[in-house]
Amino acid sequence: MNQRKISESTVRRLSLYLRLLRESGPSGTRVLSSRELAERTGSTSAQVRKDLSFFGSFGKRGRGYDVDELERTLAGILGLQQRWRVALIGVGKIGSALLGYGDLARRGFDIVAAFDIDAAKVGRHASGVNVWPLDELENVVRSHNVTIGIIATPPEAAEKTARRLADTGVAAILNFAPVKLSTPETVTVRTMDVALELEGLSFALTSERGNGAS
Amino acid sequence: MNQRKISESTVRRLSLYLRLLRESGPSGTRVLSSRELAERTGSTSAQVRKDLSFFGSFGKRGRGYDVDELERTLAGILGLQQRWRVALIGVGKIGSALLGYGDLARRGFDIVAAFDIDAAKVGRHASGVNVWPLDELENVVRSHNVTIGIIATPPEAAEKTARRLADTGVAAILNFAPVKLSTPETVTVRTMDVALELEGLSFALTSERGNGAS
Repeated sequence: MNQRKISESTVRRLSLYLRLLRESGPSGTRVLSSRELAERTGSTSAQVRKDLSFFGSFGKRGRGYDVDELERTLAGILGLQQRWRVALIGVGKIGSALLGYGDLARRGFDIVAAFDIDAAKVGRHASGVNVWPLDELENVVRSHNVTIGIIATPPEAAEKTARRLADTGVAAILNFAPVKLSTPETVTVRTMDVALELEGLSFALTSERGNGAS
Repeated sequence: MNQRKISESTVRRLSLYLRLLRESGPSGTRVLSSRELAERTGSTSAQVRKDLSFFGSFGKRGRGYDVDELERTLAGILGLQQRWRVALIGVGKIGSALLGYGDLARRGFDIVAAFDIDAAKVGRHASGVNVWPLDELENVVRSHNVTIGIIATPPEAAEKTARRLADTGVAAILNFAPVKLSTPETVTVRTMDVALELEGLSFALTSERGNGAS
């Protein structure tokens, strides 16, 4: 199985399946059909079967998927059987929102250090995370064994921040700055860009009208 | 040309091309090659040519794309030759960050009304946008001709908010709550989910290691 061939949207669906399985929890049902997985993740049965068959055959015809087994397998595929150590750079509005967002720790992502250029923000954040001066980035990222960086700086600081993270050995970056980062190929980058998503909605609204749909 | 067949990732690339064209601005170069478009948007020349040929032939062999013409065409395809009226529901940390984020207006998305259940937040926000009591949602969304809703409520309120927006005729929703919304098919939804993006990075880090890549 060559995981490099798996598309971003497949990975996204695997995440949604896993989330659903975890939410169905100990008190939930122990078997889920592809139809149930599909309905509750906005997919189709055929898509679910295709996605999961790619990683081996879990489903028992007419019985569905064993929740525990599938949960374990998906967590393994997604690398979520371990916890990830994350650094946040930029404690502005978005950065603060992320620090206060308990869902990340629940999903296995621990923000272990934050950084800001503003001395007034340095120190213990309300969330309990320590905010360091940006100068300390390299030292703290190394000493805290950080693997993932989140960039929530102003756009003009994002590129330099990404380079510093990459130079310090951070292998993955989640970028909230609306810029295209030019990082080395060894670093995986995902960008969350509100304007880009809104433009996607604008496209959908426009093409629907063009097609005469309501 | 059937725009319904265009994938989300294609639309995303069209947005990036348009952004680049707009940034290359009046003082910039007036012709861009597919190679330049590719390099500065993290794509490939072949991909750029394929994406753009889908909408008609703009490129002149050996000369590249006319910036003005391509910008006009892409803006038309993406529905960005007009401005969009947006309502924000939930003025917590993420909501406040969005209100303060000038980039949205620059890209053609005007947040014309915000809503919160907390009476203390009702009134004029620092950004100049009026925050209304949630009870007023239907009235204000209608009177302000809102087409796009942004949901930045706690997860447990998101589903109900989406239904109210859909019932009021809002045709597109950008959802920041980490839940799968079950809206009518006439409503286009995009979800921005930090945990999902981090899980995508976790997958990339895990599968790289598994493949022996650095």
